[in-house]
Amino acid sequence: MNGPWQGAAEIAAAVRAKTLTATEVVTAALARIAADNPALNAFTTVTSARALARAAALDGEIAAGKTIGPLAGVPFAVKNLFDIEGVVTRAGAALTAGDPPAGADAALVRQMEAAGAILVGALNMGEFAYDFTGENFHDGACHNPHDLTRMTGGSSSGSGAAVAGGLVPIALSSDTNGSIRVPSALCGIWGIKPTYGRLSRAGSYPFVGSLDHLGPMARSVADLALAYDALQGADGADPAQAQRPVEFVSGLLGQGRGALRIAVAGGYFREGASAECLAGVDAVAAALGASEIVEFPQAALARASAYLITATEGAALHLGRLRSNAAGFDPDTRDRFLAGAMVPAVFVQKAQQILRWFAAECAEIFARYDAVLLPATPVPAPLIGQKTISLGSRVVPLRANLGIYTQPLSFVGLPVALAPVCAPGRLPVGVQIAAAPWREDVVLRLAAALESAGVCAATPPA
Amino acid sequence: MNGPWQGAAEIAAAVRAKTLTATEVVTAALARIAADNPALNAFTTVTSARALARAAALDGEIAAGKTIGPLAGVPFAVKNLFDIEGVVTRAGAALTAGDPPAGADAALVRQMEAAGAILVGALNMGEFAYDFTGENFHDGACHNPHDLTRMTGGSSSGSGAAVAGGLVPIALSSDTNGSIRVPSALCGIWGIKPTYGRLSRAGSYPFVGSLDHLGPMARSVADLALAYDALQGADGADPAQAQRPVEFVSGLLGQGRGALRIAVAGGYFREGASAECLAGVDAVAAALGASEIVEFPQAALARASAYLITATEGAALHLGRLRSNAAGFDPDTRDRFLAGAMVPAVFVQKAQQILRWFAAECAEIFARYDAVLLPATPVPAPLIGQKTISLGSRVVPLRANLGIYTQPLSFVGLPVALAPVCAPGRLPVGVQIAAAPWREDVVLRLAAALESAGVCAATPPA
Repeated sequence: MNGPWQGAAEIAAAVRAKTLTATEVVTAALARIAADNPALNAFTTVTSARALARAAALDGEIAAGKTIGPLAGVPFAVKNLFDIEGVVTRAGAALTAGDPPAGADAALVRQMEAAGAILVGALNMGEFAYDFTGENFHDGACHNPHDLTRMTGGSSSGSGAAVAGGLVPIALSSDTNGSIRVPSALCGIWGIKPTYGRLSRAGSYPFVGSLDHLGPMARSVADLALAYDALQGADGADPAQAQRPVEFVSGLLGQGRGALRIAVAGGYFREGASAECLAGVDAVAAALGASEIVEFPQAALARASAYLITATEGAALHLGRLRSNAAGFDPDTRDRFLAGAMVPAVFVQKAQQILRWFAAECAEIFARYDAVLLPATPVPAPLIGQKTISLGSRVVPLRANLGIYTQPLSFVGLPVALAPVCAPGRLPVGVQIAAAPWREDVVLRLAAALESAGVCAATPPA
Repeated sequence: MNGPWQGAAEIAAAVRAKTLTATEVVTAALARIAADNPALNAFTTVTSARALARAAALDGEIAAGKTIGPLAGVPFAVKNLFDIEGVVTRAGAALTAGDPPAGADAALVRQMEAAGAILVGALNMGEFAYDFTGENFHDGACHNPHDLTRMTGGSSSGSGAAVAGGLVPIALSSDTNGSIRVPSALCGIWGIKPTYGRLSRAGSYPFVGSLDHLGPMARSVADLALAYDALQGADGADPAQAQRPVEFVSGLLGQGRGALRIAVAGGYFREGASAECLAGVDAVAAALGASEIVEFPQAALARASAYLITATEGAALHLGRLRSNAAGFDPDTRDRFLAGAMVPAVFVQKAQQILRWFAAECAEIFARYDAVLLPATPVPAPLIGQKTISLGSRVVPLRANLGIYTQPLSFVGLPVALAPVCAPGRLPVGVQIAAAPWREDVVLRLAAALESAGVCAATPPA
């Protein structure tokens, strides 16, 4: 009971049934963090006192017969770009270490806690979220729970390690070009990048305002949906958030694949992928009876455009620091920001045109199909320190190319679930399930169908 | 009768009363163009056959007792960036000369003709609308009807010359940073740059999509309002056009200044202006009883931001031509486009931030005042060929600085009327009347009050 692999739904049920107290749950989570974090390097801050105080308060409410939320007693942690009251929002950087502590929690932290969840800390991440590796220059690399010599992927590296390593059942993260999906895939857990504009980003450290998404990562689809449901709702404090109704998905997960029209992405999204990553997609496709192939036209151009917008918007955000203290950056991050600072605006305007065109092409595809399946990464988790990967016969830099399959989809803001395919003795691989904007229900329903069928699952590290 | 200074309202009334035929009106206009255009260089294309055919058709409709529009028989011309069926849309360039002829008229040309007006030709303009002088490298400079040795201003140079010179009562033009207001001021006629998004730009050659406005120029406020009313209405073909109701202003012109709160812009908008230009503003302010001074914060920064966005968006539009045929541009235009092609995106992103901030500041100002008065240009019409002007004690390049007072307002899309102040023996000067977005009624009502009071008027050249 209350072991490392216990999920959020189980914990909340046990707390509600009074077979576990929130204090017992949190105490156990803190003990696991103390024991296992040194090997994983997932946490950069553990908010023990806050968590225990909140657990005690919740236990008091339960004892007093008060109504408790659907995540009552569930420990969670957040990528260290979410504001935590009294904690400096690091965003993975050393340059932020002298910033004043946040005056309030981020909107999504407040929403999780309003649902009864209990924050236990902040998680390691790639500097300023500009990363696919999970190797933080200042805080050290995160280690993949399935093989401690391997990368977690990034930039939500600590999130991947903490959830896959059994330290917490849920982590909140951000995904600009793949930063939820890449570590979810490499660590073998579930994740969702909701539609652009769905969840409030208020109180989070930005990277690329026009591409940044926040979302949860978890070890089961039910937990992922519980968290996603708790995170919905417009707070008016994020100008990019759409005024959408709350559309709960937790009750819809049992519908199965039904009559949904599902295709597999071809062309660009199969080129260069390793055999094991393609096998993951094909296993998922077979389980869902998806035999049609769909081509996303000019996906490489879309990805290149996302890259330009990322580099330049990111550079604009950090321009002052690049001028005053370039030496304070992770050298890999700095070089890309400096390059971004010199990209002519005319190229970015072309990239914006391509964005509009590609979004229209995607809309056409998702008028024909309810969901499309794609690989998450070209390879399973590389070794920490590895600098290149092979895409078919081409040897390419690892850092940028772990995101070749995720970047085109966040570019147009589509909702994407990441489904883990795990097998004993093998590294996990991930499959992206993408749908039309605002159809998180579709991607999570298919995720649940795959989990029920035993095709996809987050499995404990050996 | 039917002389060069006859206005649109008079012409339409005479045509309606059958004291003039449309054919007589058009024939006279074509004769004036033939006689006077060589000195003014206003027209680049005269659509005689089309105009006479349309006049004959209209006369036939009148003879048949059909209902005719409010601009029946009124000749008009358009800056040569409006599509005219069968005519190449030049946009003031030589590089466009080989483009295929337009397959249809621009939306606003269709709307003018639907109201009974008759297109007689296309007008000279600064290359690709990137101009404040009216000196076209390929087609030659336009000449100011008030002094043929002087500039019309630009980029709607032919529009200023044709209307002020009595060739046509109405011209349609575009204004990105001041291209309606500057030539209206220097040529001593009325003009309006409506709110960004008010009128359809479908079928016009773009310059800076995020700043381009279309609008009319005329010799009386009544004519300006008649044209503006005819141009309203969404056609669905310009993605930037707002879905606004048609809000006719012609019936509202007699209301006088009433209780409107009117201020005079201070600070940036008085610095460097010549005595005669400031005297124009002060005369208008005195006539309207406007004594309060309002400061637009950081107007110089707003103008610089507009400049960056203009150079880079313009360069993006013309990038292919800059690569393949840079020598085909006007050298002055080319150099600014080439510079724009090299501006880093990070600066443009800062400019966009400043735009949002400045728009919010303007909204606050226009919550306190219904209208604000500002000079249109720092000096009256310079000599053709002049390269510098004095802003107070500073000698600065003429080309960019004719627009210092117009550029900050188009940057935020405010509606602005240009009121001409003319005095015998002196060059005209212009006063901008600006209001909150969508309040064209306010600026035109004040324009009419000034005309009625005899303070502002378009007067025939000596």
